[in-house]
Amino acid sequence: MTGACGGEDQSVTLDVLTKKMEEFAKERNWERFHSPRNLLLALVGEVGELSEIFQWKGEVPRGLPDWEEEEKIHLGEELSDVLLYLVRLSDICGVDLGKAALRKVELNALKYPVSLSQNSANKFNNNASHGV
Amino acid sequence: MTGACGGEDQSVTLDVLTKKMEEFAKERNWERFHSPRNLLLALVGEVGELSEIFQWKGEVPRGLPDWEEEEKIHLGEELSDVLLYLVRLSDICGVDLGKAALRKVELNALKYPVSLSQNSANKFNNNASHGV
Amino acid sequence: MTGACGGEDQSVTLDVLTKKMEEFAKERNWERFHSPRNLLLALVGEVGELSEIFQWKGEVPRGLPDWEEEEKIHLGEELSDVLLYLVRLSDICGVDLGKAALRKVELNALKYPVSLSQNSANKFNNNASHGV
Amino acid sequence: MTGACGGEDQSVTLDVLTKKMEEFAKERNWERFHSPRNLLLALVGEVGELSEIFQWKGEVPRGLPDWEEEEKIHLGEELSDVLLYLVRLSDICGVDLGKAALRKVELNALKYPVSLSQNSANKFNNNASHGV
Repeated sequence: MTGACGGEDQSVTLDVLTKKMEEFAKERNWERFHSPRNLLLALVGEVGELSEIFQWKGEVPRGLPDWEEEEKIHLGEELSDVLLYLVRLSDICGVDLGKAALRKVELNALKYPVSLSQNSANKFNNNASHGV
Repeated sequence: MTGACGGEDQSVTLDVLTKKMEEFAKERNWERFHSPRNLLLALVGEVGELSEIFQWKGEVPRGLPDWEEEEKIHLGEELSDVLLYLVRLSDICGVDLGKAALRKVELNALKYPVSLSQNSANKFNNNASHGV
Repeated sequence: MTGACGGEDQSVTLDVLTKKMEEFAKERNWERFHSPRNLLLALVGEVGELSEIFQWKGEVPRGLPDWEEEEKIHLGEELSDVLLYLVRLSDICGVDLGKAALRKVELNALKYPVSLSQNSANKFNNNASHGV
Repeated sequence: MTGACGGEDQSVTLDVLTKKMEEFAKERNWERFHSPRNLLLALVGEVGELSEIFQWKGEVPRGLPDWEEEEKIHLGEELSDVLLYLVRLSDICGVDLGKAALRKVELNALKYPVSLSQNSANKFNNNASHGV
């Protein structure tokens, strides 16, 4: 996957996924369909499919201990669909998603300092708060 | 970022983002809030904010040539928020998102063979089709 | 509201909301912005805001017994925003939403017969099922 | 539909849809699945299906003049699914959706006075604006 960098699964980069999506569209002559708002609506569609997996379950614990393997594989596919359209939308909009995400993590750290956030649920009682 | 692999921004890995999100939550004692459905709804909230950026614009061309720099930065932040919650949701569900995404790209290639898809818009005339 | 029909709040019709949205847009010369996909993305934005209200709460019981009055009013506003854009989107697309909804309830009744659905959770164990 | 009030399709009330959804769930013993967050995620799923209808089309004109009848019927069904879950979610949360929507229209009128909004696209250049 990442050549000299080892090829372990855990080292999948956003750049690799971006290139794969670009090639995928180019090979199929689908680039003409990949406009920003088309891709955004496709992303919304996939988020809908992801939500359907969780919709009738009530709260579910971390790690999904009671889910069947088939269901977890389906979940992985829907999570992936969201990711792939997100990566493609970013690319088509000219946004470097990896760089933007690292920057956003830093902004979030400034917005929610550890000393003020720890043991506090302020963020979670304030619906105006949208940060990570 | 990826040690011997160069540390360039373009090599941001899903694994790095996953670790950053885990540390972020742990440092703030926010892990108790990061249940699967809480994170899913937070993701939906961010997709809503992403949609708001595009909502009154009509179709926009690739590369967003007419957008102001400030607006593109805002776009990068909302794309990042979606990514960060997606990465966190995957981690909390025990899904290896990078591995799943690579697998999904391969499944999509089987589902839409180049020879049948090229110069055809069948996929795009069939709303039942949800694939990438 | 509905003239001879009593004017009670509970008798708010989709037709009345449709007319109010049309007038609202016309008076402000906003009709040019109300294209189908613009309205759809605005709807997605409002669904995002609705989700934010519930995002960090874990499961909440029916009737929201522990919510503050202010929060319930906010919820009513976000539910309304979704409804108003939905009504407007339907109108702009030439869909009679009231007629369509009554028809859909009947289709759902055929799809899920009482005799088969009662005391059964089949629907809820089948993620392929998208019906109401 | 509304008895003495005429029974025309255009007079479909939110109250009627609310009652139909309540009966539908009760008859099937599905009330136990209709918790606020379950219904919210079901709503998100339906918004995803609605988005899929529009996802590869680029901008489409009002009235959808080039759509086939079958496609418009499908659109009506997805719009209805969103509406039905929205109505049900409101009911389960104890929100009078009709009353809330009329109030929200009035709030929007105060927020965007005709004199200031006419011939102006300020709202549409300001992504912070979420109102109707």
